[in-house]
Amino acid sequence: MNELTTLLGNLADRTNNLHGRDTLFTWDKSLDDLKTLLDVAEALRLMRADGTATRCFDSGLAISQFRDNSTRTRFSFASAANLLGLAVQDLDEGKSQIAHGETTRETAVMISFLSDVIGIRDDMYLGAGHAYMLEVAEALDQSFRDGVLPQRPTIVNLQCDYDHPTQTMADLHHLTREFGSLENLRGKKIAMTWAYSPSYGKPLSVPQGVIGLMTRLGMDVTLAHPPGYDLIPEIVEMSARQATESGGSFHQVATMDEAFASADIVYPKSWAPYKVMERRTELLMAKDGDGLKALEKECLAQNARHGNWECDRARMDLTRDGKALYLHCLPADITDVSCKKGEVTAEIFEQYREPLYRQAGYKPYAIASMILCGRFGDPASVLQSMMERGDRRVRS
Amino acid sequence: MNELTTLLGNLADRTNNLHGRDTLFTWDKSLDDLKTLLDVAEALRLMRADGTATRCFDSGLAISQFRDNSTRTRFSFASAANLLGLAVQDLDEGKSQIAHGETTRETAVMISFLSDVIGIRDDMYLGAGHAYMLEVAEALDQSFRDGVLPQRPTIVNLQCDYDHPTQTMADLHHLTREFGSLENLRGKKIAMTWAYSPSYGKPLSVPQGVIGLMTRLGMDVTLAHPPGYDLIPEIVEMSARQATESGGSFHQVATMDEAFASADIVYPKSWAPYKVMERRTELLMAKDGDGLKALEKECLAQNARHGNWECDRARMDLTRDGKALYLHCLPADITDVSCKKGEVTAEIFEQYREPLYRQAGYKPYAIASMILCGRFGDPASVLQSMMERGDRRVRS
Amino acid sequence: MNELTTLLGNLADRTNNLHGRDTLFTWDKSLDDLKTLLDVAEALRLMRADGTATRCFDSGLAISQFRDNSTRTRFSFASAANLLGLAVQDLDEGKSQIAHGETTRETAVMISFLSDVIGIRDDMYLGAGHAYMLEVAEALDQSFRDGVLPQRPTIVNLQCDYDHPTQTMADLHHLTREFGSLENLRGKKIAMTWAYSPSYGKPLSVPQGVIGLMTRLGMDVTLAHPPGYDLIPEIVEMSARQATESGGSFHQVATMDEAFASADIVYPKSWAPYKVMERRTELLMAKDGDGLKALEKECLAQNARHGNWECDRARMDLTRDGKALYLHCLPADITDVSCKKGEVTAEIFEQYREPLYRQAGYKPYAIASMILCGRFGDPASVLQSMMERGDRRVRS
Repeated sequence: MNELTTLLGNLADRTNNLHGRDTLFTWDKSLDDLKTLLDVAEALRLMRADGTATRCFDSGLAISQFRDNSTRTRFSFASAANLLGLAVQDLDEGKSQIAHGETTRETAVMISFLSDVIGIRDDMYLGAGHAYMLEVAEALDQSFRDGVLPQRPTIVNLQCDYDHPTQTMADLHHLTREFGSLENLRGKKIAMTWAYSPSYGKPLSVPQGVIGLMTRLGMDVTLAHPPGYDLIPEIVEMSARQATESGGSFHQVATMDEAFASADIVYPKSWAPYKVMERRTELLMAKDGDGLKALEKECLAQNARHGNWECDRARMDLTRDGKALYLHCLPADITDVSCKKGEVTAEIFEQYREPLYRQAGYKPYAIASMILCGRFGDPASVLQSMMERGDRRVRS
Repeated sequence: MNELTTLLGNLADRTNNLHGRDTLFTWDKSLDDLKTLLDVAEALRLMRADGTATRCFDSGLAISQFRDNSTRTRFSFASAANLLGLAVQDLDEGKSQIAHGETTRETAVMISFLSDVIGIRDDMYLGAGHAYMLEVAEALDQSFRDGVLPQRPTIVNLQCDYDHPTQTMADLHHLTREFGSLENLRGKKIAMTWAYSPSYGKPLSVPQGVIGLMTRLGMDVTLAHPPGYDLIPEIVEMSARQATESGGSFHQVATMDEAFASADIVYPKSWAPYKVMERRTELLMAKDGDGLKALEKECLAQNARHGNWECDRARMDLTRDGKALYLHCLPADITDVSCKKGEVTAEIFEQYREPLYRQAGYKPYAIASMILCGRFGDPASVLQSMMERGDRRVRS
Repeated sequence: MNELTTLLGNLADRTNNLHGRDTLFTWDKSLDDLKTLLDVAEALRLMRADGTATRCFDSGLAISQFRDNSTRTRFSFASAANLLGLAVQDLDEGKSQIAHGETTRETAVMISFLSDVIGIRDDMYLGAGHAYMLEVAEALDQSFRDGVLPQRPTIVNLQCDYDHPTQTMADLHHLTREFGSLENLRGKKIAMTWAYSPSYGKPLSVPQGVIGLMTRLGMDVTLAHPPGYDLIPEIVEMSARQATESGGSFHQVATMDEAFASADIVYPKSWAPYKVMERRTELLMAKDGDGLKALEKECLAQNARHGNWECDRARMDLTRDGKALYLHCLPADITDVSCKKGEVTAEIFEQYREPLYRQAGYKPYAIASMILCGRFGDPASVLQSMMERGDRRVRS
């Protein structure tokens, strides 16, 4: 357990500013805080692999609220909660919408009396997802101050309209392990590019989250998409600023080929233009079914003009030594497998299946780390205690 | 932990007659049993606040069956189960109705082999909810006697057509804390009054549960509603009798103003007349959609004649020193917030938001107490053992 | 705990070949493995009855995937998981079908990062259920070999198109207790017979599972059904072979009366002909609603010709001393109770209600045993440790 000792040493050297705060964006955390999140995630992963029991809660609820479908994140959240000793209780709004204003505030408190974490996915409505999380956070703050809540549950953003921090921190965990360390990522080129999909309306949170995080690390971050497929401008501008500050670079290019050229890492993935997401949000809120159908038709036609934005062997050959690491948040639209024409060829996907699954496997630890760092002032000491107790996860 | 020691002392002095019984009504419990429920709830609350681990089950299931929507009670039940170490498993009947007779009996047993508690909400059908719980109870009794079940799960009524004991015991917990003690409630005036709502068909269980419980405590209980909005007559009669026996009083008045006059506590809340609930039950059972629509229209028109039954500043000024404690089981229909015209003005609701949330926060402990008292012969010793073990809920 | 000591002794004498394998069929397990499953189930049952805590997992998920409705098995799975310390997380595919091929493989891995067991019910599609489980198993094998999964979750078949091992092992547990031992079943006659039901399309897995298991034990297994109500031929042939090998016998007869004659055990239950299930599978896959309605009509008409296949007093009088043990997997179609005309008269069902419920009560332990034996190399030592720790399930 030499590695673990090193991690605990690193952790002990840093103040945990994540304690008592929520994880809504990666970009409002300091670099040290991101390192802490990574180190705690890795420590938990090592302990789990070694069979050490990692329950730091004897009881407590982990609330999940999925305002959009989810399999991967749902199971990652459940796994993370369970790893730390919390029981999942799902807030299923069913067909009724929890109205904004009074009711969001009230519901937030009503589910929190004995809760330690609330995980929220709200990525459908541009301009609403993050705002909803802030509203929940304020309600919890108020009721904790009032003494109504015996503890302040930490909020974990399980995907909003801006960011997807549990995904991108898992991605980063994967990169640090593939490239040896966080420091080794400095100077590496990552291509975040749009890719063709036969569906429309995929959220912006992954590409935004990726450029918003990777520009912090001195990497060469290149963003590529067809004309009109813009991300939210503020996030693109922020990413450019961050790249400069971190000693890296940020470029936007017009083709997948340019993005892939000499890249160390590629992340080809479909998304919808943010202007489309804005229109879609208005139509969804107005419950305008005809308008939504018309928008979908228009967007699919627009997508169809860019069917050649596919990650294939020829493009992979453009990357550094033809061996870039291929990333995806999954599920991918795989040509001739899950659809006729998609984001990636079956050959490339098959080649990278193992590392892709490994990438996905970090998410439970990313979430567990956010819970642990949000709820405990001194994560190093919590982990140290687990090691010293030496309880086994499986008692044979 | 002086308070806790006092509570344990009180508990040790009383025989626990709740052991091996279900919590279906408050009115079939002795006053001592109600005190035990309150004391155990408060002890668990203090221990949770102090960070003491309160798991008395190493494993075991807590079954929930919600035959009507629920957020608050669902999370309270999950919290209570988790607090004691039980895992929640929800019995979701889906669209199929579990037929009465054979099948209720069989299902009750099938879900109970390793279960310690079954929480049931069945409040939609007048004449059916409590009957259903009795049927489940009989099935469990029989199978426990037969040795088919290794333990007899305790049943907790999470709201039926008559009573809502987890709500009213949480309300009472709140009152004892606001007024200092159960004894201090003697002579206090509580106004249980109807209030206007733009919806119809709200259950009778809260007002019935409130008058059925508060008349046991020597309080001055005043019930007010517009003509025709009667509660089930047997419960009103029982409440009057109980008031006499407890040295308190029970009055019915015709206006909200009279009820509020010099009240120490007000509980303004909408409900449907029991005769309407009877007709509604018949229509629901006959699946008579047109009949239900006609009934709703008729009832909303009837409600509309009483739009002035609203809790506002002027009425609050009629209460003792203008400072009565405002109660509600939540969610409230708040004028200009959740509806155009409702049970209470935004101003009053806002003034009492903090105590209202506090009131709601007692429900997890009310339920946990019912589980613990129903399953353990000697609650004082169970709590004493938890204290002596001194395990922490959160292990940092 | 003399019995328990004997069981642990038996277990210690046998190699556990179930470790690292899935429980998909009973017939691919050796007789020794089946004995191990029974002994572990009985040991867990005795320990639970005695109040001994049986958690061998400190954390870990138990995934359930029900591709068909379930109450009994769902609660049995939840109970089993909880008994061993695992938390249930349900994979709800909702209305979307998880496509076969790539996606099944991927989903299987995505839900398994911190999972110890996956329980699957997939009994609707003849030719697909078992195939699906194999596909999941292969995906898990691959990802475990790749180091993507830190552990290989064991798969428990909660009912497929061929077998229903958690049901039949619970049935067998019941029989060993009713007849004193597994050895005492040798030479006993069990009648697995079709019975009339007003519905159609009931799975074949129970009758197939029963003849596929009971022919291993030297029993006289007699199968009866009306012409055309055949089970899958390969399983019938296998059962005949097994009967010869085990020193028992296997007969097929044309009437319920012949099957019941001198039977020690009767298991009258409706099922659909496998050829109907094949046609139904094709229609379901083609989403041919009209075809399905036509098939149902045809099958109900066919069923109606065999309404006299009912288990009644006269037929029970044909059994050994008129006292055969009546088995059913529940829920039964009971004449004049759950339907006008069904599989069994109310009188017979009522007479056997207690043993029927007892029979059902073994299922949680059957599942727990499959989990424990699949995940631990030395079940005897796991159980021994539980006894030595002596933790109580309920801490009073």
